[in-house]
Amino acid sequence: MKFGGTSVATTDRIRRAAKRVGVEVAKGYDVIVIVSAMAGKTNELVGYVEETSPLFDAREYDAVVSSGENITAGLMALTLQEMDVPARSWQGWQVPLMTTSQHSSARIVDIPTDNITRKFGEGMRVAVVAGFQGISPEGRITTLGRGGSDTTAVAFAAAFDAERCDIYTDVDGVYTTDPRICDKARKLDRIAFEEMLELASLGAKVLQTRSVELAMRYNVKLRVLSSFEEQSDEAGTLVCDEEEIMELNVVSGVAHSRDEAKMTLISVADRPGIAAAIFTPLSEAGVNVDMIVQNISEEGRTDMTFSCPTNQVGRAEQALKKAKDSGDINFHDLVADTDVCKVSVVGIGMRSHTGVAAKMFKVLSDEGINIKVITTSEIKISVLIDRKYMELAVQALHDAFDLEKA
Amino acid sequence: MKFGGTSVATTDRIRRAAKRVGVEVAKGYDVIVIVSAMAGKTNELVGYVEETSPLFDAREYDAVVSSGENITAGLMALTLQEMDVPARSWQGWQVPLMTTSQHSSARIVDIPTDNITRKFGEGMRVAVVAGFQGISPEGRITTLGRGGSDTTAVAFAAAFDAERCDIYTDVDGVYTTDPRICDKARKLDRIAFEEMLELASLGAKVLQTRSVELAMRYNVKLRVLSSFEEQSDEAGTLVCDEEEIMELNVVSGVAHSRDEAKMTLISVADRPGIAAAIFTPLSEAGVNVDMIVQNISEEGRTDMTFSCPTNQVGRAEQALKKAKDSGDINFHDLVADTDVCKVSVVGIGMRSHTGVAAKMFKVLSDEGINIKVITTSEIKISVLIDRKYMELAVQALHDAFDLEKA
Repeated sequence: MKFGGTSVATTDRIRRAAKRVGVEVAKGYDVIVIVSAMAGKTNELVGYVEETSPLFDAREYDAVVSSGENITAGLMALTLQEMDVPARSWQGWQVPLMTTSQHSSARIVDIPTDNITRKFGEGMRVAVVAGFQGISPEGRITTLGRGGSDTTAVAFAAAFDAERCDIYTDVDGVYTTDPRICDKARKLDRIAFEEMLELASLGAKVLQTRSVELAMRYNVKLRVLSSFEEQSDEAGTLVCDEEEIMELNVVSGVAHSRDEAKMTLISVADRPGIAAAIFTPLSEAGVNVDMIVQNISEEGRTDMTFSCPTNQVGRAEQALKKAKDSGDINFHDLVADTDVCKVSVVGIGMRSHTGVAAKMFKVLSDEGINIKVITTSEIKISVLIDRKYMELAVQALHDAFDLEKA
Repeated sequence: MKFGGTSVATTDRIRRAAKRVGVEVAKGYDVIVIVSAMAGKTNELVGYVEETSPLFDAREYDAVVSSGENITAGLMALTLQEMDVPARSWQGWQVPLMTTSQHSSARIVDIPTDNITRKFGEGMRVAVVAGFQGISPEGRITTLGRGGSDTTAVAFAAAFDAERCDIYTDVDGVYTTDPRICDKARKLDRIAFEEMLELASLGAKVLQTRSVELAMRYNVKLRVLSSFEEQSDEAGTLVCDEEEIMELNVVSGVAHSRDEAKMTLISVADRPGIAAAIFTPLSEAGVNVDMIVQNISEEGRTDMTFSCPTNQVGRAEQALKKAKDSGDINFHDLVADTDVCKVSVVGIGMRSHTGVAAKMFKVLSDEGINIKVITTSEIKISVLIDRKYMELAVQALHDAFDLEKA
């Protein structure tokens, strides 16, 4: 069971979370609880570090910011003990959760289960583990970076062969689309790992991509549910192997992302290797290129369009101008359009059903929405459109694919 | 070098403290810095624990409250690195500072020096150690209790055979008496361990008794100085072996304590073993009895007077009434007087000079102050008097023993 920062923001909320743990213990389960820092604590600690040292040593950063989770772990163990549930806290180095030495973005190497298993054998019912942290081969404290607590939870579930991994958060599950944009959005009871991965990377903020990847690799049943609503066995959304989903949806959800910019290189000299000449300097500059479209070539010249996150536009322009100045590429003009957005439909059933793309394009066309760029994967179709049409597109696609119906 | 909570209360103050460390590094010293939690942090963490669990598990309490020092240690290391001083932080378990398993009041068992010494050999100039914490034989985090950071500093100085142990605090040294009570109070350049011990246990809040005891046992030269004043080699007060003090003062200081209550058992049946019958139940009830006076016996009965901290009066009354009810002791009445205070003169020269007690009693008598109880040790004389005379007594004694003159 993993509780995020808003679920443990105060000692009262920790008590509420502990009650949910108590319910599982009463059912006979031994439980490993992974906790985040109390909401706001990590930002406070990061603030101290940034005040102290703009170019900080990541090892010291990790030693400082990991404190937030340690505090919650101790408080959660105390709360469970108050409820007569035998519990104790574990900091990363005590487990030990062994990681690589890449401080602030370490990867989990191993979770030996001996120490915690022995304590379960001695009567402990709940191991409360500080999320987001581990220990390097050098004996220094590491942190796992973004989404680290979700990843910790999934890794523990895999290491201990847990029956389920429940992620408690401030939303009550995964929806067919963003309920703030489309009031017909419906909570999904189940979703396949691959679909969740596409939705996570497309901007649905429920779970971090990394934790879903890990769950898929080790086939950990993930349940996403709210710590603020009544609990039941059917609550939330189960993220699981597609084989555990009876009737696969052709389309399971519509995702959107505002954080997209479109960049077009106008009149590029079209020659073999031109794509590499453009995208190598972008990659070296740390630009995350998402979609790419090359126009048909006329008289040896073409237009090349790609998308990247909005805050990387400056970096992309700089890299491309430098490549032009050094003669590596040749183009007439560079046009950035930050007034766009990405809308995607995702569904594992697309693998066996055809016509989804055609239907998506027709729906958008009927609404008068012009498509600027298209990309597809086996279970996803994404389009770049003007930002002003985002809500309209999401709602129209949600209707057209009947997503409000279970 | 040890920096207390007010000396590291903000990132700015940490920077100021780091500059002082930098000065010592520039002189060629390798430095071990012991840090407390930023002022207020420990109270915040203790507050969380008390909200969570009134009868808390001390192991979890320790895991939570030790976080404060870890945060400061990381921030101090980062600040030193910003100043181009090679530094790293050490949490108690990383050193490892090995303690007993008495959580929240653990005692230091050993400080292996290998890990930190090896890093000094590799070019590290400053080891920043989180104070107040260690690791138990079971691998759990322990804390050392009150004054734990001072004790950590002295223990490290002893283990590493340090040239000096500088305790930075919010006062600039040890004074002949409390400057808030007596404006003629003078800062002492040097004071002997034994004198400091008497002053510490008598209510001078500069250093905790425990750290002075440890310094005396291992002959660690302790310097107390302010982190808010200009630094010089002669700053502060050096607490050292009496052999390093050229001219020992007959009287070095006048201490006072408001936290005293006088209790009198009236008309106790005087028989062999009566003192044990009275003080054993008090000790079992956790009452810290300080001074004891027994009146001369008349007709087989006597009065017995003792002092204890004000907040233990209720506990003492309860224990004595219980002993009376069970027939273990027999007395006519029990009178508590919380309107008293203790004033003491301390000086290592008393060992060889006589007449200090006589002079003290005459000074108080000349001021019309009645003495209620007297105790003495080899280097101290303490009296219990009415609280309203406290300032007058301190000032008169300070004058009479010429303490304003160096």
